This record gives sequence, C-alpha cells and structure tokens, in this order.
Amino acid sequence: MTVGTLVLLRHGESEWNAKNLFTGWVDVDLSAQGEEEARRGGELLRENDLLPDVVHTSVLRRAIRTAEITLHTTDRHWIPVRRSWRLNERHYGALQGKNKKQTLEAYGEEQFMLWRRSYDTPPPPIEADDEFSQVDDPRYSTLPVDARPRTECLKDVLARALPYWYDAIVPDLMAGRTVLVAAHGNSLRALVKHLDQISDEAIAKLNIPTGIPLRYDLDPATLRPTVTGGRYLDPEAAAEAAAAVANQGR
Amino acid sequence: MTVGTLVLLRHGESEWNAKNLFTGWVDVDLSAQGEEEARRGGELLRENDLLPDVVHTSVLRRAIRTAEITLHTTDRHWIPVRRSWRLNERHYGALQGKNKKQTLEAYGEEQFMLWRRSYDTPPPPIEADDEFSQVDDPRYSTLPVDARPRTECLKDVLARALPYWYDAIVPDLMAGRTVLVAAHGNSLRALVKHLDQISDEAIAKLNIPTGIPLRYDLDPATLRPTVTGGRYLDPEAAAEAAAAVANQGR
Repeated sequence: MTVGTLVLLRHGESEWNAKNLFTGWVDVDLSAQGEEEARRGGELLRENDLLPDVVHTSVLRRAIRTAEITLHTTDRHWIPVRRSWRLNERHYGALQGKNKKQTLEAYGEEQFMLWRRSYDTPPPPIEADDEFSQVDDPRYSTLPVDARPRTECLKDVLARALPYWYDAIVPDLMAGRTVLVAAHGNSLRALVKHLDQISDEAIAKLNIPTGIPLRYDLDPATLRPTVTGGRYLDPEAAAEAAAAVANQGR
Repeated sequence: MTVGTLVLLRHGESEWNAKNLFTGWVDVDLSAQGEEEARRGGELLRENDLLPDVVHTSVLRRAIRTAEITLHTTDRHWIPVRRSWRLNERHYGALQGKNKKQTLEAYGEEQFMLWRRSYDTPPPPIEADDEFSQVDDPRYSTLPVDARPRTECLKDVLARALPYWYDAIVPDLMAGRTVLVAAHGNSLRALVKHLDQISDEAIAKLNIPTGIPLRYDLDPATLRPTVTGGRYLDPEAAAEAAAAVANQGR
C-alpha cells in the first residue's frame, strides 16, 4: 500500500491583507506581492522536485490565482483542478469588510482575540443585506441557505472541511498522487489540526505562513503525518513569516 | 427537455503565432496581445450576459491561460474546470517548430496547402528524438504510446475529439449548463464540422477567429445548432479576423 504526498499552500498577500481588513468569504484578488509569493511557491516546488498531480482549491479568487500562478511556474498548469467552498477561508461573519485595528480598538483586546483565535466562538453572524454578505453570490447558488454559513469559528471550518478531506483529497492521496491544496489560513489550520491531532487550545497558537509549500508525508495505514507538523520547503522563511502573522492587527 | 448553451473560444495570439511557426502540441505561452484577446473575450461574455457554468480546455498552456483570463474577467473563475488532450490543437507532426514561410518556400504552395488545409493528409510524423516531440512530456504519461499521435490531419483531430464531445461536453449541455470550450483553431474547426455537418471539402475554407466567443444554441433532441454556424458575440470583428487568418503564411 502506497500513499501520495500532501502539499498545503496558503495564498499570498491579498488586496485586503494589505489594507488590514477582515476578508473571510469576500472575493478579493491577490496583491502584486501575493502574486510574487505564488511564483516563489512554484519555484520551491520545482527546486524540491515536488510536482503536483492534482490541485484542490477553494472557490475564492486569491486561492485560485495562487494555484494558477504556482502551477504555471512549475509547468504543471495542465493537471486536473478541483474546487470546493469547503476549502474556503473561515466566514468572518459581521466582521467581513471591517478594519482589524478599528475592530480591536472598538471591542478591546479580549473580545478581538476571542473572535480571532478561540476555537469555538464565532463572530456575530452577517446580515443578509450587509454589502459583504454572499447571499446573492452565484457560486453558492446550489448550496441551500440552511447549509450556508453566516459566520464561522475554526471548529465550524473543520466540520465543513473534513467531508472534503475524506471524500475528495484522501482518494487522490490513496491513488498515490502528489496533491496540492491551495487554500487559506484557517481552512489549512483546520486540516493541520486534524492531521497533527492538535488540541483545541494549542491550535490558537498555530500560524501557517503564506506562499511557502508545507509538505506532509503520510502513513498509508492511518493517513497521519510521519513527521508531526510536516516540513516547510523553506523552513527559515516559514519561521520568520509565522512570527509576523501572529502580530497582525497590532 | 432543456439544453444548455455552447460557447467556443479559440485562444488568442501565442508567442509562436507572432513568430509564424507551426505550433501543434508544443506548449507555448500567450503573447501580450493574446492575453488582451482573452480579456476582450471575457468582456464580450459579460456584455452578453453569457456566463459559463463549466469550462473545458485542452492541456496546452495557451488554451488554459485563455480560459483563466477570460473567466477572471467575467468573475466566473470559480466554476468547475475540465481538461483533456482530446481538445488539443492538431499535432503538426514533423512541421512542429518549423517556420511557416520557410516551409512554404521549401515545399511549394501545393504541398504546403495540402498539409495546412486538406482534410485527410497529415504532415510527416515527428521523430521521437525531435526537440519538438512530446515523447517525454509528463502530461501524456498515462496515454499509451500507440494512442499518442505523432502527426494529425483534421480528420484525425475530429476522431479523437468526438469521444470527448459525447462523453464530457454533451452531458454538461444536457444538464442545462452554459459550457465554455477554450481550445484551438483545429480542435474547434473539428467540433464545428461535426455540429454544422460541414463537408470534408467545405471545412478547408472555414477559419475560426481568435478571442471572439462563438455561441451555439442547440436543438435539445438532436444537439444540432438551431442557427447553422452559430453566432459570434462580435460578428464584425469575427469577419475581419477570419479573413486575416486565411492569409497566414503568405
């Protein structure tokens, strides 16, 4: 029994990262720096001879474009593509479109960190008529309204990402493929929590840096990592970037 | 019984169109003008409210990037993507990588036009050690060597494209979807020959211009076009461009 290799890639800087706004399901584009990060991700894959056979993305532009740029860079633009809303960023509820610094000032450090980092406390749900709700977004038109999040905590993200892990990603891994998952800070944290069996408390401190492929080799019997935490293709840059992410909004 | 809408889109200018080289299965990129054509294609789709629900491409970069740019322009980057070598450009055999003008001078007008336009005369097959053969190309590694073309005439292209039409594109149409096929001059000519039941002789004169979406509405019972030849979203530009293509290599 053989098993493929899992490669997680968080999209690079978006137009709203640069503006310090909560993004969630709002479909913003990569910034020029984000495009450059995606190219660098592709170069790291090529340098490490880690060529994806299939790619899974969210339905959000910043992850889709990251996958496109990364794959063109590695000359793997022709591989099969799968997309799912289940790999989307966490839905940030009523905070979507709000400035992070202003939110911190308005609600205070404790509430701010609870919304950002607690495992099971979602922000207030977004109103349907909020300009940053996705109520009329055609990409979710086949998802019944009772299944469509109006806010999410990380626990919710894991609950909706896990069916996609089992039903779409694992079969590709079991077929021996190198599987690239191009997604978001929180959907990837949810997958990593599951893979590395990280506790609800400890996950708060885990940041995944942007644009640096994270390689997981898996035990074929259990689908658990052979090395806990996986291996970043550029470990030094990953350590620096993770520290910077932890200070966002300060 | 309802049926979806078919939209054919030929990729814009490639780096080798601009250099006047036979391309075939060689995986060249779009030129800056080709990227601009793809954006214009997306704008035409948006202006005509013809928003794809699914996209099919070849496994060649110029068609893949055309689809990506067109779909980002129409805000439909998140739709499902399917790719197949069966939508590839015609394999140009030993002519791949050769200059069109020099080929015309070396072989004469009659032989040149036979290779370019006859329905059933392929160019000489490419040698495995030719720098422009795809013998070691990983994207065809699951295609047995006896099924992998070394040269093709338009008849061959139709024979290998038709299974994909029946098995992958038609089911999407029968599900009522708007289906974008982003492909190549000859794979699209082959599909149009089939749809419009064009004779082996008459197809020689049919050119499909680059970057202008061609809309086909289909009869649900027969899957034949309700308007022969379909409708270009910019008919004036299509007529001008088709005339220009007919003069290539002169």
